[in-house]
Amino acid sequence: MSNSLYIVIVGCGRLGSHLANQLSHVGHSVVVIDRDEATFNDLSPDFSGFRVEGDATQMTVLKEAKLKRADVFFATTHEDNVNLMVAQIARKIFDVPHVVARVFDPRRQQVFDRLGIETICPTSVAAEMFLLAVASGRAAKEDTKP
Amino acid sequence: MSNSLYIVIVGCGRLGSHLANQLSHVGHSVVVIDRDEATFNDLSPDFSGFRVEGDATQMTVLKEAKLKRADVFFATTHEDNVNLMVAQIARKIFDVPHVVARVFDPRRQQVFDRLGIETICPTSVAAEMFLLAVASGRAAKEDTKP
Repeated sequence: MSNSLYIVIVGCGRLGSHLANQLSHVGHSVVVIDRDEATFNDLSPDFSGFRVEGDATQMTVLKEAKLKRADVFFATTHEDNVNLMVAQIARKIFDVPHVVARVFDPRRQQVFDRLGIETICPTSVAAEMFLLAVASGRAAKEDTKP
Repeated sequence: MSNSLYIVIVGCGRLGSHLANQLSHVGHSVVVIDRDEATFNDLSPDFSGFRVEGDATQMTVLKEAKLKRADVFFATTHEDNVNLMVAQIARKIFDVPHVVARVFDPRRQQVFDRLGIETICPTSVAAEMFLLAVASGRAAKEDTKP
């Protein structure tokens, strides 16, 4: 597949494993890194990528994942500080062109932005969707209550 | 404000408090319920709604929040099972017209759907956004690597 990307994902939790399965399924080369080997059980049986067990804040672990080759890097652990640290290493030291990090605390997004790291905050995204639901609730109220 | 809605939010964590602050700020009547009084510290100083300390799976607590009046009900605790339970009570017993629950495990969304509860899954939403980032990564690769 000529459009295949080399994608490194740190964190094999619910989000990381979901992404790894999807991206491997459509033909990308995927490497997943997690400290806890048990998390690899969430990878689907037809996941064709690589698993690296180790602490992604260690350079040796990132080198083992061949981060230098990566087109895309995702930091999806449950710790904002870990995501910030590994995302910066990927961006600044390994020159990965596209780096995206999950960040739980919306107030930290500004810090990531200044450091040139693209972020996705599930809390902010979910909040926007809830607020859209309020808008539709108001529409429903206007329909039923004259 | 004639368009003001009566909104009950269960869970005053990061998502719940953010929603409560925003919705109160734009003029809605908001009641937030949480078992842990300390979580109310995340409400902004100009939050003009009500705080109810208690377990939202108890009918007395929901009655205290005047759930019967609610136009919109949000279940935002960190436990999918609690969200499912209180959302069902709001929908079936208190006839709240618009009920939305956060669900962390995407596999549970189908159950909620069958029970008529609208759900928002931060993991699924975040995953979609990461996959969009891959699409833009591929575009970048095509631009730079002939």
